Amino acid sequence: MEHKQDKTLLTDLYQLTMLASYHDNNKGEDTATFDLFIRKLPEDWGYFIANGIEDAIDYITSLKFSESDIEYLRKQEFFKPEFIKYLKDFKFEGDVCAVKEGTLIFPNQPIMRVSAKRSQAQFVESALLNMINFQTMITSKTNRIVNAAKEAKIVDYGLRRAQEEDAAMKGARATYIGGAIGTSNVKAGKDYGIKILGTQAHSFIMSFPSELEAFRAYAKTFPNKGTLLIDTYDTIQGAKNAAIVAKELEKQGDRLSAVRLDSGDLCDLSKKVREILDKEGLHYVNIVASNDLNEYKIEELRKNGAKITGYGVGTEMITAKPVAAVPGVYKLVEDNDGAKIKLSAEKKTYPGKKQVYRMAGADGKYSHDILGLDFEPIEGTPLLEKVVKQGKRVTARRSLEEIRQYALDNASRLPDHLKEVKVARHYEMKISEGLSKLIDNLTDKYGNGGK
Amino acid sequence: MEHKQDKTLLTDLYQLTMLASYHDNNKGEDTATFDLFIRKLPEDWGYFIANGIEDAIDYITSLKFSESDIEYLRKQEFFKPEFIKYLKDFKFEGDVCAVKEGTLIFPNQPIMRVSAKRSQAQFVESALLNMINFQTMITSKTNRIVNAAKEAKIVDYGLRRAQEEDAAMKGARATYIGGAIGTSNVKAGKDYGIKILGTQAHSFIMSFPSELEAFRAYAKTFPNKGTLLIDTYDTIQGAKNAAIVAKELEKQGDRLSAVRLDSGDLCDLSKKVREILDKEGLHYVNIVASNDLNEYKIEELRKNGAKITGYGVGTEMITAKPVAAVPGVYKLVEDNDGAKIKLSAEKKTYPGKKQVYRMAGADGKYSHDILGLDFEPIEGTPLLEKVVKQGKRVTARRSLEEIRQYALDNASRLPDHLKEVKVARHYEMKISEGLSKLIDNLTDKYGNGGK
Repeated sequence: MEHKQDKTLLTDLYQLTMLASYHDNNKGEDTATFDLFIRKLPEDWGYFIANGIEDAIDYITSLKFSESDIEYLRKQEFFKPEFIKYLKDFKFEGDVCAVKEGTLIFPNQPIMRVSAKRSQAQFVESALLNMINFQTMITSKTNRIVNAAKEAKIVDYGLRRAQEEDAAMKGARATYIGGAIGTSNVKAGKDYGIKILGTQAHSFIMSFPSELEAFRAYAKTFPNKGTLLIDTYDTIQGAKNAAIVAKELEKQGDRLSAVRLDSGDLCDLSKKVREILDKEGLHYVNIVASNDLNEYKIEELRKNGAKITGYGVGTEMITAKPVAAVPGVYKLVEDNDGAKIKLSAEKKTYPGKKQVYRMAGADGKYSHDILGLDFEPIEGTPLLEKVVKQGKRVTARRSLEEIRQYALDNASRLPDHLKEVKVARHYEMKISEGLSKLIDNLTDKYGNGGK
Repeated sequence: MEHKQDKTLLTDLYQLTMLASYHDNNKGEDTATFDLFIRKLPEDWGYFIANGIEDAIDYITSLKFSESDIEYLRKQEFFKPEFIKYLKDFKFEGDVCAVKEGTLIFPNQPIMRVSAKRSQAQFVESALLNMINFQTMITSKTNRIVNAAKEAKIVDYGLRRAQEEDAAMKGARATYIGGAIGTSNVKAGKDYGIKILGTQAHSFIMSFPSELEAFRAYAKTFPNKGTLLIDTYDTIQGAKNAAIVAKELEKQGDRLSAVRLDSGDLCDLSKKVREILDKEGLHYVNIVASNDLNEYKIEELRKNGAKITGYGVGTEMITAKPVAAVPGVYKLVEDNDGAKIKLSAEKKTYPGKKQVYRMAGADGKYSHDILGLDFEPIEGTPLLEKVVKQGKRVTARRSLEEIRQYALDNASRLPDHLKEVKVARHYEMKISEGLSKLIDNLTDKYGNGGK
């Protein structure tokens, strides 16, 4: 997997000013624990699928200021020479627990828990959030779309609308983990081994004297795996032209793979095109569709009986529009003074080193979770596991296929009501006895609003 | 400026399948012209500021399949050996016209016009859209926020919510061009020379026995450029504590720079905090604010007299939430057969090689544009200029400061009604006589819906 070695300065300046002040005040050497979690589900959503963990581990374990980083920081007016010197040997030496990439996650559950010297544990906040917020959002959004499509396949068409290259790349990987079967993004195919898929643009059809000639030219090059875009001029005529070419291919022992719709009433057109193809015995030719799709539109198409077996989804899957960002945060939950709590209703934080315990019913479906303290004797499967110990990775890398399979197995155990496009009733998370007591004690201690 | 040399495979597979089929059918060698333009403004928006052009030029002029790219493509089942061989020497040898980075742009105006062998002109579509869609969106969104803030300054706080690293980096650059005065993103500071700004997190305050001790610790490290976050426990008490520390700093000849609000009723709190600071003679201490801000909230704060001189804006500026993507497209407008037109109401395309002519009134403000044919004798300033000739860059690189200044000069010439947060009346674009005639002729020719 691609990994940039130069993410150390990919941080908010306040991480460096805090680090400098901790250093200056001998405050950075004690141990602190931070939780990374997402506060809230977007409207209509019922769950997240955690992603970005692998990149986060790579980032944490390779943190190092390069000489040019140091030189840049020295030139700023912010920092004292002792601090600049201190940065030269700065690295992450602590422990990290995280859920497996592909794990179902609900609001306020730690996706990652970082325990290290305060200086080190604080510093990694910005980059971790940058990776995990985006990748988790896209995998979750994709899985919603996959749910809506049921048997139909989803393909990532998002490159041109992705928020720059990394979003297209990490996004393609995230959609694959979330259940897409492939991507149009060739570089993602190369770097991650994801299946690549593609058809042609209207400009290709318009580059030939007629649609039929364009179809024949394409079929000549791809006699056995061609998909023909049939809506450039008139979709019904396009389907008839595609059928002509498919029959010509049959004569030479080849098979047209599919036709693509990209405009108009996709449901109605798919039925008419299916009829045209079937009348010619072309039952094997699939109909795929694209055009600003999302989970709501795909569900409607399915419910209305659209004859579509595959969807290319672009903008809304790769950007999670209109959500665009999930509110992942990174909060201090414990230090040498004990567990920490934030009491404001708006920005509540659960204190202490915690674990998520997941319960399943007799049918194998997840029934509820318990948010408890680490090592509290609670039934259920604990989700957080040690991934970094004293600055070193201690968990095996899994292949993308393993991660995807794990994510889809996880998703298959969701209660059905959470797979709806508009989720009305949320998953239950209980607070353990141990955590409840801790909250009560801290509320008594800090409840007067500051010290 | 950072430039990745490996964007050649950052393309949709259909660009390669079309390329293969053009090659197979001797169709790729004639000349074709494509326009890159944005179909529509997002709701409430009145204009775009074009961005991403510099990256686009770098991409086009360095296009080359690496050996490992070739090897990857060879292993796929799609392509014939002759085509794989052809890719080895594939490069861009055509011409590109573009508007300057920072130019005001309206729907259906070409931001870029690419004329080259059909194969080459087609191939660059996906990556160009990936860069220009995002960077243009973020610069435009930022400028809207800057308009709303008027005298108050805008700073990019978006790293943690950006859609991965490139979005944070190119996004920071885009916000700077759009009028932000700096960024919290240290790597963007290093790579682009943008001013970096930062304060501290609540976790910093919580790491000391009391807020006052935390403020003193921070002021010790940054006696002359400190901003103190005052809302961790109680904002009013926080302001009083900040005033105590500011007076202590005064005694040693130093000055507190600002206090930051990050929750609650920012308008009301800013007035109360201003009063507390002013009572102590701390008129020079600024009040800055953050907390899920956008142009609508900032305008309301300003109109209600909030005493805030700077805003840190995160999520909504760096993702342009809820817009998340603008509908930039890349369409064939001319080839050896003449000008091309698409007539569907939904996806109209203006035919031919075009130019945008911009008119200004006596007050220097832009009055309207004329979309005309290239070299049509029309008054007004032509916006598209040659940037690549026969595959080589022919335009000088401008510094980021020059680009920003150009963008802000451009924006200052917008009619006032387009600077509103909710734009009710749009900018006028007329169609030239020459272009009108061309459209009429082509409509007669192709108007029957296909050939």
